[in-house]
Amino acid sequence: MTQDLLTKISAMNGKLSKGQRLIAHYIVNHYERAAFMTAQKLGAAVGVSESTVVRFAYEIGFDGYPRLQRALQELIRNRLTSAQRMEVTSDQIGESNILQKVLSLDIERIRRTAESVNPESFSAAVDAILDAQEIYILGIRSSASLANFLYFYFNHIFKNLRLVSASSASEVFEQIYHMGKGDVFIPITFPRYSRRSIKATEFAKSTGAHVIGITDSDHSPIAPYCDNLLCARSDMVSFVDSLVAPLSLINALIVAVGMRKRGEIFKTYQDLENIWEEYDVYEKPQPTAQ
Amino acid sequence: MTQDLLTKISAMNGKLSKGQRLIAHYIVNHYERAAFMTAQKLGAAVGVSESTVVRFAYEIGFDGYPRLQRALQELIRNRLTSAQRMEVTSDQIGESNILQKVLSLDIERIRRTAESVNPESFSAAVDAILDAQEIYILGIRSSASLANFLYFYFNHIFKNLRLVSASSASEVFEQIYHMGKGDVFIPITFPRYSRRSIKATEFAKSTGAHVIGITDSDHSPIAPYCDNLLCARSDMVSFVDSLVAPLSLINALIVAVGMRKRGEIFKTYQDLENIWEEYDVYEKPQPTAQ
Amino acid sequence: MTQDLLTKISAMNGKLSKGQRLIAHYIVNHYERAAFMTAQKLGAAVGVSESTVVRFAYEIGFDGYPRLQRALQELIRNRLTSAQRMEVTSDQIGESNILQKVLSLDIERIRRTAESVNPESFSAAVDAILDAQEIYILGIRSSASLANFLYFYFNHIFKNLRLVSASSASEVFEQIYHMGKGDVFIPITFPRYSRRSIKATEFAKSTGAHVIGITDSDHSPIAPYCDNLLCARSDMVSFVDSLVAPLSLINALIVAVGMRKRGEIFKTYQDLENIWEEYDVYEKPQPTAQ
Amino acid sequence: MTQDLLTKISAMNGKLSKGQRLIAHYIVNHYERAAFMTAQKLGAAVGVSESTVVRFAYEIGFDGYPRLQRALQELIRNRLTSAQRMEVTSDQIGESNILQKVLSLDIERIRRTAESVNPESFSAAVDAILDAQEIYILGIRSSASLANFLYFYFNHIFKNLRLVSASSASEVFEQIYHMGKGDVFIPITFPRYSRRSIKATEFAKSTGAHVIGITDSDHSPIAPYCDNLLCARSDMVSFVDSLVAPLSLINALIVAVGMRKRGEIFKTYQDLENIWEEYDVYEKPQPTAQ
Repeated sequence: MTQDLLTKISAMNGKLSKGQRLIAHYIVNHYERAAFMTAQKLGAAVGVSESTVVRFAYEIGFDGYPRLQRALQELIRNRLTSAQRMEVTSDQIGESNILQKVLSLDIERIRRTAESVNPESFSAAVDAILDAQEIYILGIRSSASLANFLYFYFNHIFKNLRLVSASSASEVFEQIYHMGKGDVFIPITFPRYSRRSIKATEFAKSTGAHVIGITDSDHSPIAPYCDNLLCARSDMVSFVDSLVAPLSLINALIVAVGMRKRGEIFKTYQDLENIWEEYDVYEKPQPTAQ
Repeated sequence: MTQDLLTKISAMNGKLSKGQRLIAHYIVNHYERAAFMTAQKLGAAVGVSESTVVRFAYEIGFDGYPRLQRALQELIRNRLTSAQRMEVTSDQIGESNILQKVLSLDIERIRRTAESVNPESFSAAVDAILDAQEIYILGIRSSASLANFLYFYFNHIFKNLRLVSASSASEVFEQIYHMGKGDVFIPITFPRYSRRSIKATEFAKSTGAHVIGITDSDHSPIAPYCDNLLCARSDMVSFVDSLVAPLSLINALIVAVGMRKRGEIFKTYQDLENIWEEYDVYEKPQPTAQ
Repeated sequence: MTQDLLTKISAMNGKLSKGQRLIAHYIVNHYERAAFMTAQKLGAAVGVSESTVVRFAYEIGFDGYPRLQRALQELIRNRLTSAQRMEVTSDQIGESNILQKVLSLDIERIRRTAESVNPESFSAAVDAILDAQEIYILGIRSSASLANFLYFYFNHIFKNLRLVSASSASEVFEQIYHMGKGDVFIPITFPRYSRRSIKATEFAKSTGAHVIGITDSDHSPIAPYCDNLLCARSDMVSFVDSLVAPLSLINALIVAVGMRKRGEIFKTYQDLENIWEEYDVYEKPQPTAQ
Repeated sequence: MTQDLLTKISAMNGKLSKGQRLIAHYIVNHYERAAFMTAQKLGAAVGVSESTVVRFAYEIGFDGYPRLQRALQELIRNRLTSAQRMEVTSDQIGESNILQKVLSLDIERIRRTAESVNPESFSAAVDAILDAQEIYILGIRSSASLANFLYFYFNHIFKNLRLVSASSASEVFEQIYHMGKGDVFIPITFPRYSRRSIKATEFAKSTGAHVIGITDSDHSPIAPYCDNLLCARSDMVSFVDSLVAPLSLINALIVAVGMRKRGEIFKTYQDLENIWEEYDVYEKPQPTAQ
């Protein structure tokens, strides 16, 4: 698949009808746009009918047009620059009803994550986290938000926790310099993968730390350095990387870890409740007379 | 509803059968647990059958047990301390299959958000953001992750943007001190609402700024100070506030704003692409020969 | 002294000449300005000669006008609001030659710090830091800069180090919640003392941690909770709190700790040098052919 | 001077006495240590008397040994790695009396800064800052502390202010991407100069912004891109870069700018005082009955 798909389409040229050849030509030259077009739009773009496009998909070996489209989307995962993403946006999302479309796409991403996530990796990750001497969490670029969220809750559960974060003062590598065997490193990275995250994960593995990667697939560049992989669908919405499914996965990780440390957390939260009250952190619920 | 629900249940005591009275008594005294029990579990807890529980729900005026349960959950929204949340966790989530349950609950939250979100408020918010002199984003506690994410993308679109963030050096109020008419303030807050977020929103409104609240409902304490309300379901998963639906809503907001500034962003991303390349920010896609 | 000084001046009224009474009246009512006036300016303000002011100082028991002035300045340490500080600025600094005046005042502050700092406390602090299980550093408001600087260098020396910092996500107390016996807590606070710093120091002491306070004097509100006090002069320059002498003291602390861990740091820096080179952190020195 | 110094010493070999040749050989091969040795120590290291070392200095053209030593120190400014710095520490500071030595060195640095700083540049910088459309402050690595401090006070004075800071989410360049003519950029960088600071300064200049460099000398790598240079001595104390003189210079800059905006700041501080009071930011002064 993938690259081969384009080669294959080119190679089949001789066997295709004239209309199908137009489709093939368009796909090979504009696959980054074709990947987000419906059969109807693709047909319109090259001047053939929707059904010609659908037959074309079967002709070249796919079980329907949606499968062909999915294959094209896989092909360009992580290959588009942000500027190219802007270009394909109108094909994918359009300008009307953006809100409903984005929410639907995000639901679909969580659903596909639920289908594909590996429960054994998830359990093994929970065990490793509970056994860790020191836990390091890393998220760069848009994944920094996910890392902050995970850190926020883990900080209520664990003493031995560090959020590795780039700052004006400090480089990522200086913060993981002391890492070693017995520690757990949790890198969070999604396409377009941050280069520093990959380098840091490679380094972490070399220190003997247990690495739990939260990423998008087995093909992620951090995969070779991970002891456990937790994968969530992050496909882009237009120029935005949707991190909704990864966030849902992280929710599950926090809950699963929390359930295992229930007793301690219960105690911690009773103490924190007093601190929060003293510092007026949260709004007090109103006498409910709504 | 809500508080009245408990009063009503108490008041009906005389009309109830003995088994129903046991249920009523349990609900009134343990509503924070009952809210997360199935009919079967609630029955088991008080020693009556599941069908008795279901009939009880109809008896007191609900169209089925799930409606009663929903009402109880509404009643305690934002009322449970974190420690109480830990207690109800096992009723709601249990200890097995946590991953699938959390993902399903998050899908359900986005679905309910899609049903209830107000498209006019959404459009008005997009317009106001595009017209703003200065845009301020605020998120405290776990909502800080959402604010960071929104800031990350808006920073590629707008020059006149500020992330208001508490820090060791600076108080939230010092950062919004100069706000005024023509500016847009975007507070993001979900139960348990951060008190500083509410105060800051009240202040922002008083300066004449246009306020776009991203929160959980019309009953949110920031609602009275907002010109536009964008609501997403954030109900807790165990002790974790799920911010998955809010994040999906924010995705939509970024895409919608981005579509309107398409031309400029396209240009910005072409420039940034060079910067990212020079600084090795992103991993380069491998020659795809998978 | 201090408050009593004003009472005393008032009480002496009967024994004073007419010109001296004018001075006394001015000081009692405008001590926050008088504290920063030369004898000549004070005389001009009330319409008497400079020598009358000088004699007044002796009359009420001071060994010269500068001593009286110093006493007045002590009186108002930490009592002036920032707005009042702006008012007294022109008396103290004037509008010309600000640069030289500020540098001279800062030299004077380090000199007085050198005279007054307690070398035994300093040594004891170094020992405690080297023995610590976990080291926590805290600095709020303008002291956050000092805390960041200390953290920057200690981070190259110690693995077991935490910078406690307020952020949108996290309260100071949540970050020191796990502190205990065997740990070292280093609060840095100068007038106007941050209230959270004082509270956190009180809490730290209660956990059994060893507390090393970096502050301005034995009268600092954190003093009662400190095992070792390292004091540096921070008196205000106009509305700015000068933290130059505290920074110099912190330099000394880093060097003293570093000398004791020389071997390990040498090794660390050899490793970091490679990391810095790989990531192009520092400019490479030019072939020096200047 | 500098590199030529070593060449020159080598070249003179033929004219030197045997003892002087030993000194010359030592200096050429260990200049990074010799630079921090007294005449006596250097003599002891090569087995000659202190007076031989002193005569050697005159012989090769210096007006006394301290001048030779200063020249050697200039030679290695910014050339030593941190590991080498650790090595020379004991020669420079020793292990006893570290506290007093560091404070004295810092006083000396401010004194030399006062002698060498350019008052016209300082005035011009103040004017430019007051005229700026947008003010950007940048400090990376240990200079981040200085940038934070400057930002803390400028934030009370200016609305149009941005602290440019590297973070997990954001690259420095993304934050200065919108800079242009009419804006002021204030990079703060000291040896070992951060590479990103230099690059960012080069970029800022190219946008037409007015650049005010706070650095250590006219030879700083940011100097070519600066409209005004404010120089302060930052020579290292052992492995620590002392930023005491730069901080004193920044104090002066804040005071000078503040004096010019006196009226507005006075008003701002009156407002902030209420905010600080409401949020219990500062400890309230005790009734002074000491």
